[in-house]
Amino acid sequence: MKNSFGSNLTVTLFGESHGPAVGAVLDGLCPGLPVDEAAIAAQLAKRSPQTEADTARREPDRFEIISGVFEGHTTGTPLCLLIRNEEARSGDYTYGPARPSHADYPAFIKYHGFEDYRGGGHFSGRVTAAIAAAGGILLPALEKKGIRIGTHILRCAGTEDEPFAENAAALTAQLDQLNAKSFPVLNDAAGKAMTAQILAAREEKDSVGGITETVISGLPAGLGEPWFDSAEGLLAHAVYSLGGVKGVEFGLGFGFAAEKGSRANDPYRLDGAGNIVTESNHNGGILGGITTGMPVLFRCAVKPPSSIAQPQNTVDFLRGEETVLTLSGRHDPTILRRICPVLDSLAVLVSADLLTGRFGCDWFIKE
Amino acid sequence: MKNSFGSNLTVTLFGESHGPAVGAVLDGLCPGLPVDEAAIAAQLAKRSPQTEADTARREPDRFEIISGVFEGHTTGTPLCLLIRNEEARSGDYTYGPARPSHADYPAFIKYHGFEDYRGGGHFSGRVTAAIAAAGGILLPALEKKGIRIGTHILRCAGTEDEPFAENAAALTAQLDQLNAKSFPVLNDAAGKAMTAQILAAREEKDSVGGITETVISGLPAGLGEPWFDSAEGLLAHAVYSLGGVKGVEFGLGFGFAAEKGSRANDPYRLDGAGNIVTESNHNGGILGGITTGMPVLFRCAVKPPSSIAQPQNTVDFLRGEETVLTLSGRHDPTILRRICPVLDSLAVLVSADLLTGRFGCDWFIKE
Amino acid sequence: MKNSFGSNLTVTLFGESHGPAVGAVLDGLCPGLPVDEAAIAAQLAKRSPQTEADTARREPDRFEIISGVFEGHTTGTPLCLLIRNEEARSGDYTYGPARPSHADYPAFIKYHGFEDYRGGGHFSGRVTAAIAAAGGILLPALEKKGIRIGTHILRCAGTEDEPFAENAAALTAQLDQLNAKSFPVLNDAAGKAMTAQILAAREEKDSVGGITETVISGLPAGLGEPWFDSAEGLLAHAVYSLGGVKGVEFGLGFGFAAEKGSRANDPYRLDGAGNIVTESNHNGGILGGITTGMPVLFRCAVKPPSSIAQPQNTVDFLRGEETVLTLSGRHDPTILRRICPVLDSLAVLVSADLLTGRFGCDWFIKE
Amino acid sequence: MKNSFGSNLTVTLFGESHGPAVGAVLDGLCPGLPVDEAAIAAQLAKRSPQTEADTARREPDRFEIISGVFEGHTTGTPLCLLIRNEEARSGDYTYGPARPSHADYPAFIKYHGFEDYRGGGHFSGRVTAAIAAAGGILLPALEKKGIRIGTHILRCAGTEDEPFAENAAALTAQLDQLNAKSFPVLNDAAGKAMTAQILAAREEKDSVGGITETVISGLPAGLGEPWFDSAEGLLAHAVYSLGGVKGVEFGLGFGFAAEKGSRANDPYRLDGAGNIVTESNHNGGILGGITTGMPVLFRCAVKPPSSIAQPQNTVDFLRGEETVLTLSGRHDPTILRRICPVLDSLAVLVSADLLTGRFGCDWFIKE
Repeated sequence: MKNSFGSNLTVTLFGESHGPAVGAVLDGLCPGLPVDEAAIAAQLAKRSPQTEADTARREPDRFEIISGVFEGHTTGTPLCLLIRNEEARSGDYTYGPARPSHADYPAFIKYHGFEDYRGGGHFSGRVTAAIAAAGGILLPALEKKGIRIGTHILRCAGTEDEPFAENAAALTAQLDQLNAKSFPVLNDAAGKAMTAQILAAREEKDSVGGITETVISGLPAGLGEPWFDSAEGLLAHAVYSLGGVKGVEFGLGFGFAAEKGSRANDPYRLDGAGNIVTESNHNGGILGGITTGMPVLFRCAVKPPSSIAQPQNTVDFLRGEETVLTLSGRHDPTILRRICPVLDSLAVLVSADLLTGRFGCDWFIKE
Repeated sequence: MKNSFGSNLTVTLFGESHGPAVGAVLDGLCPGLPVDEAAIAAQLAKRSPQTEADTARREPDRFEIISGVFEGHTTGTPLCLLIRNEEARSGDYTYGPARPSHADYPAFIKYHGFEDYRGGGHFSGRVTAAIAAAGGILLPALEKKGIRIGTHILRCAGTEDEPFAENAAALTAQLDQLNAKSFPVLNDAAGKAMTAQILAAREEKDSVGGITETVISGLPAGLGEPWFDSAEGLLAHAVYSLGGVKGVEFGLGFGFAAEKGSRANDPYRLDGAGNIVTESNHNGGILGGITTGMPVLFRCAVKPPSSIAQPQNTVDFLRGEETVLTLSGRHDPTILRRICPVLDSLAVLVSADLLTGRFGCDWFIKE
Repeated sequence: MKNSFGSNLTVTLFGESHGPAVGAVLDGLCPGLPVDEAAIAAQLAKRSPQTEADTARREPDRFEIISGVFEGHTTGTPLCLLIRNEEARSGDYTYGPARPSHADYPAFIKYHGFEDYRGGGHFSGRVTAAIAAAGGILLPALEKKGIRIGTHILRCAGTEDEPFAENAAALTAQLDQLNAKSFPVLNDAAGKAMTAQILAAREEKDSVGGITETVISGLPAGLGEPWFDSAEGLLAHAVYSLGGVKGVEFGLGFGFAAEKGSRANDPYRLDGAGNIVTESNHNGGILGGITTGMPVLFRCAVKPPSSIAQPQNTVDFLRGEETVLTLSGRHDPTILRRICPVLDSLAVLVSADLLTGRFGCDWFIKE
Repeated sequence: MKNSFGSNLTVTLFGESHGPAVGAVLDGLCPGLPVDEAAIAAQLAKRSPQTEADTARREPDRFEIISGVFEGHTTGTPLCLLIRNEEARSGDYTYGPARPSHADYPAFIKYHGFEDYRGGGHFSGRVTAAIAAAGGILLPALEKKGIRIGTHILRCAGTEDEPFAENAAALTAQLDQLNAKSFPVLNDAAGKAMTAQILAAREEKDSVGGITETVISGLPAGLGEPWFDSAEGLLAHAVYSLGGVKGVEFGLGFGFAAEKGSRANDPYRLDGAGNIVTESNHNGGILGGITTGMPVLFRCAVKPPSSIAQPQNTVDFLRGEETVLTLSGRHDPTILRRICPVLDSLAVLVSADLLTGRFGCDWFIKE
């Protein structure tokens, strides 16, 4: 399938920005998981525009569960959820001149002009609301198994946040804090500086990029396949669905390029409880594609949003003429803040898929 | 499937480093493709140890086509190829103390100690010989369709190679040159400096990392899916099978983090022939997951090989005891050179899969 | 995926009998197909209870297209359609005593008691409304390509209908007639006898089984795979989703058991236009799993509905006690009439999947 | 994938009748299964020509395990096995005149004339040697879990064998007996009559069809999916790979057509040990696509082999001319005997796939 992901636990996405709704079907869920509507709503709320640094578009993001839940628990049959589009203003969009660095032109080639071009259609970030919600269904089940997931903005414009802590207890504390923040950084001073830069970019009718960092702690060792379903490959595949992501790295990532084996290797040792751990975690919790039991750590390069209010050279592909396009509408000067819960949800889905494949579909409700 | 990749054209890998053979099954091939055994051999030769900077282990890499080829052409049925392991020395390997940053320990957890641990078993780089060969089957078919693929070492230790040219003719010339070189760099002086650093690392019983850069030119616009089978997602998924790859980025990649939309966007224009092209190619030929017709460009962070001849702290996981391990055996001080044809072959396989899905399985033999 | 079918064109089903809705997601559709809401409604109408021989439950079957359609055409992105459940009366169902020959007990084991047991939940024939509608989306596109599909009741209780004609023009006339009938038989006298038997069975608080026959004419030769995705295997796989189907045969089917090769083989000849055809079509248009260009012909054994109003011995699986169950509620004394459009739609989906895989996703809109 | 089957445990087939070898790759195997080469050889031996009623072609069927086995146990990585073709005589085959009711003509359309036509190529029954062997790898693991599988010839020409016993102990005894017989029937007198009819058919340069019956006992309840991966759908899909199978039915199968619900339903009761069982097993151990814990029972209609030594009308599709073809070569007058172990192996593979998906990949080595 094309718009689906996951071998054992599969998510299928559908919907267009200005159609009736976006949504997802989750198949392969363990029966008997409590479905916490508040957890779903919380994921949606994190993703929704809310701070001064976000788009002025306000989406209520009311979701409806169509199937697969009965008396508050998953049934184990496909769970379809819908999020209606209540706030779409089609008037803001036109067809013909390709918005630079958006999917308009390749979509036109792919779909022969039949695509719903309004607001990016099926390419719209709006579809990520369905991802966020899907993650919200499984997040409590993972937490119950001791698996914690969180994402912060590591870099925005010129400002850097603190990294995730290596110490397990400190990391847990960081994740608890992140969960409560509307702007997901570990260091609030860095967050303020980032916000200022985002607002300045909007003032200049421009947009800014940055880097996110995601951690999955508590994932058992032994998940993933050597060829080709490595834990890295599955996570990168999922994350590259997001049009704004242009780089994914694990552990030291591109930092390995300047390293030597003697410093980059992660020596093993026994921890106090006799567990096998690594002293460093340069490999981001994955070796040979298989999880090691150390926290899985990846960073994403997020490009500045392509929608900017400055005039841009482009081509009207219906007429085959060069033209200049100035976008109006309500745009985010960065997607860094809003992409974090979406990355969390993707990490949830990939983790749950790997766990289901390894331990069977009932693992989540076993003691 | 776990050890398979591709929706329409699927490759399945099998084999262990010290077992009878490694190999691949290709399914979904267009019938009627000329099978050029020299092209397969050439891919294998590029990957085989040959320069002074490589491991001393010499593998003849004779391949045998078991099925799917008749009278010099693909039949369209599954093509199985085998590469016998003729040069394995099992004596160099022991079981128990995990080699740091190798897959030994997660493999032990995953396979409960039943894995073939000799030389990394199924995790061995040896399996990439099958990938290289599989790519060699399809490479001529892609070239006949005007699709060119090549990889060079962009950075090794501290030395940087020239980047790929933006100009199409210049890029073609670069790819022609690369094809003829035993050390895949565009600037030979840079290549010499890199080789010196590699040899120095070996002298120090150490290893070095770096960055590769791969280009796919001539790929038509419109390939890939928005969710989840983006062109980026498929390429990254494939490439992350290689245990040494810890980062993948497209176009500016992590460079986007410091950019603003006004500079990072790729404006469209018409070229002399009236085709829609972009002035810059910061997005590496992919927007919203769909190819734009511009060259697809990605870079991989390649970690220094984990096998180094220095003593390393580790744990004997059979006994649960900390220990010190000093590896003997014949190891590469870097995999940068040998990974290039493997990346080319993975790019071949992903491209062919996307083309097959879009145009049907007979596209390759249509005029 | 579990609740999905199709490699290139995929349908995913969701929904429970007494939940908010049932529905389907179609992925891999050709962009630019006109979506004829009347054709969808017609498929739903054929499946809905309407004759005196059907259940008294009346379902309005209003459908809503949530995504993947824009300005009356498919966009090529996932098409989600919903059919709300407006007529469910939960009071008719209880949990605990397994209805004999329904899925209640195996579902209880599979889902650990978390299944939505009302009206069969996800196992309900209600879900086939989504299949019928999904077929309605593609039926006009297939007809435009000269592919005709139809199903009649070949046998019901003791009465046999005429078989499909071997002559192409006669077959087309039969399919046209079938399309216009509320009770899908070729011989109306047979239909009347069948209806009488169905009504008699209801009178006896019983139900009757039978055999359906489906034809797909105009399908090009060369579709299907030798191992394992044979045209027969895909059709049988799809059709066995229907809980009431317990046998599937192609061409002579079980009649081959009494045959010799000399009589059973289908000799080739040239027709008037020089096309290669077979004199007989004992193999039902499929050889070695691949379509031959002759009409694809298959029959399904349909069991009598398990819901009968007589007392039946069973076990209350919550209490682990034997008990006697007498079902109330509104039940069909046979599903033979209503299964026909569902079989048509499944044949549509499998045909479209095979055609998409072979000719690429744009084939349907090519001239 | 096309030539693969199974979601969790996947088998991929390759090879042509007159190429170097046929083979299979099994992926998703539990690590740590003892690989009993004798069990593999036994499956191959059952399938190999050996009685007077079989083809005169004698195949040694030596297999080689290429990967995925180490020190006598599965490693959990892909297991590739090869069976060399040592006995092929290409001279017996020509290209052009389509053998009636073989795949020659549809294969020519599908593969554009590039197919290996010798002996049916990839369509050859020779490929089923790889299926038989693949089943032999897993058969002991299933038996250790209390799952028994067997197939007998239920009908051949006019002669009927006894059916499988409903009583569990009696069924086990039958399976033990079947295992030891070279001609798989329960009633030896019936077997002798069948053999006489087979030999008579050969004498008449003809071939005969029949019906097989397969049982899988001991399979736990709760396996399979409602839409579309029903236990019936998966088994039928697998079995329809065999070109000679033209009908598949479960339980009463086509016998349901003449039944009423009141007689056809399977009432539940508690057995002596308090387990929930059904009094009859008309549904063949599957309800709503899910296993019930009762024996899974299916029958296959097997057509008479298409290769007969009588002159047959056909078309030379290279020249587009009608012609008469008289086949020489060594052919089976029936495949009924030799298909039984192949059906067993397919049942093994589907069962193992379902079990792996449900309980995780390590289930087979858990106590």
